[in-house]
Amino acid sequence: MRAGQSQPIRWTILGSGTSAGVPIIGCRCAVCRSDDPRDRRLRCSSSLETVDAEGQHRLILFDTSPDLREQALRHEMMRCDGIFFTHHHVDHLWGLDEVRRFNAVMGEGIDIYAEDSMMRNIRRVYPHIFEREQNTNDSFVATLQPNRIVVGEAVELFGLLIEPLRFLHGRLPILGFRVDHADANLRGGADDPLPLAYCTDVSAIPPETWGRLTGLKTLILDMLRPRHHPTHFNVDQAVATADQIGATATYFIHMTHDVCHAELDAELPAGMSLGFDGLQLGTLPVAD
Amino acid sequence: MRAGQSQPIRWTILGSGTSAGVPIIGCRCAVCRSDDPRDRRLRCSSSLETVDAEGQHRLILFDTSPDLREQALRHEMMRCDGIFFTHHHVDHLWGLDEVRRFNAVMGEGIDIYAEDSMMRNIRRVYPHIFEREQNTNDSFVATLQPNRIVVGEAVELFGLLIEPLRFLHGRLPILGFRVDHADANLRGGADDPLPLAYCTDVSAIPPETWGRLTGLKTLILDMLRPRHHPTHFNVDQAVATADQIGATATYFIHMTHDVCHAELDAELPAGMSLGFDGLQLGTLPVAD
Repeated sequence: MRAGQSQPIRWTILGSGTSAGVPIIGCRCAVCRSDDPRDRRLRCSSSLETVDAEGQHRLILFDTSPDLREQALRHEMMRCDGIFFTHHHVDHLWGLDEVRRFNAVMGEGIDIYAEDSMMRNIRRVYPHIFEREQNTNDSFVATLQPNRIVVGEAVELFGLLIEPLRFLHGRLPILGFRVDHADANLRGGADDPLPLAYCTDVSAIPPETWGRLTGLKTLILDMLRPRHHPTHFNVDQAVATADQIGATATYFIHMTHDVCHAELDAELPAGMSLGFDGLQLGTLPVAD
Repeated sequence: MRAGQSQPIRWTILGSGTSAGVPIIGCRCAVCRSDDPRDRRLRCSSSLETVDAEGQHRLILFDTSPDLREQALRHEMMRCDGIFFTHHHVDHLWGLDEVRRFNAVMGEGIDIYAEDSMMRNIRRVYPHIFEREQNTNDSFVATLQPNRIVVGEAVELFGLLIEPLRFLHGRLPILGFRVDHADANLRGGADDPLPLAYCTDVSAIPPETWGRLTGLKTLILDMLRPRHHPTHFNVDQAVATADQIGATATYFIHMTHDVCHAELDAELPAGMSLGFDGLQLGTLPVAD
């Protein structure tokens, strides 16, 4: 921290769309043809930026969506200091190869953080990164350092505590994350979004997780569409869950083309909004 | 064919960029900041469209780049009737999941065509498509029918002959494709691009392939950058190879940010041009 008194924080929703994005291929519905940029949704991923104790700008990714290249270009991302993964589905992992460019720009490897089962999936999809000696050609591949994470054991990184939480995505146990300042005295400014919980691809919250969703300033929560879905909260479920959690501000993500931003956003209860691609929470005074 | 006398053909370069695309993440060079849309390169993929004997519009993909969603949206693609794969690298395969949408729109499965080694890689990366019964959730996944292809054995499809050819991508044997009309009497119009050869990610052409690169109207050929590279033709190698093949028209693809379109394109020999995203060869009178 530059001033030694506060830790600036900026959360960016890089993508707010469901697995096929919005517009979806081959669709001419009103939302898929909407002129409202908030109705154009890349696949879900977020970044968390801060300035560490040495004054270094840091950027942490939550998932690497298939749209990571486009997301990095839009936000002129020049670095990546860590990646936390929620689960292995295509729309949350398939952009991992793009981080080669951060390796090249920074001249450093990147720490990735995943549960054991997730790490096995990452290694299966990307053997050219993790078993480089078996590549037919000696090509330019990402340099990643795997770190095992466990539900309930927070990782301390750049003055932040990032705690994996258990959620259910249909029958699949996945992770969400709670982010706090490691030093509660070093809060950011008035618009500091922490404590924040990032909960994508959720259809149920196990009992043991509820206790970690208290005292939130920000909740980012899955809300697929109005109709029921077996692996995602629909609108009614998401609103009821957000109400129960009671964060100061809630933003919904992972939406399909069944959601017209302007229409649904206007109908949500106070303190709840639809997220959209490029939405930023907090302020980062210093950038690289 | 509607008229019974000609078969319309349209080839579209969906992406003309190297594996990281152009602009590349974290770069502020002149090409990465260029205003020329031809300097914005998505990852390499092409489509081949025709109208079959029953008057049905058909679209065949060559590779599924990580940018397939964006490419499909730009070109308002409403269907996909087959996919031919060159090799398993991320920039040529990682968009495969997007074709779920074509399944949904068409209500049909999609035939995919790959060599045995390639098919093994597709199954490794996408077990949720091919071993659906093992998925934790019964989610919406692509429906694909695998077809084994072999060098030198042309596939006849919608009045076209698509023949796999062997190329070397560094030490990795990969495929290119030669496309001809199945009935040589049913040529397209004056701008018919067939016979055409699509040769991406090439650093060497084996002796047995040269005989299949004769009589081409169109050659689409790898040309990474001016500097030498172990797994791609550089500018000098690509120009010399194109000269030796002697197609009526040659278009280069798979370019890095070292290539400024306007500058290099102006210097190329007669009959050779740089490809670019959205370049179309031939005419398709009828669209769905």
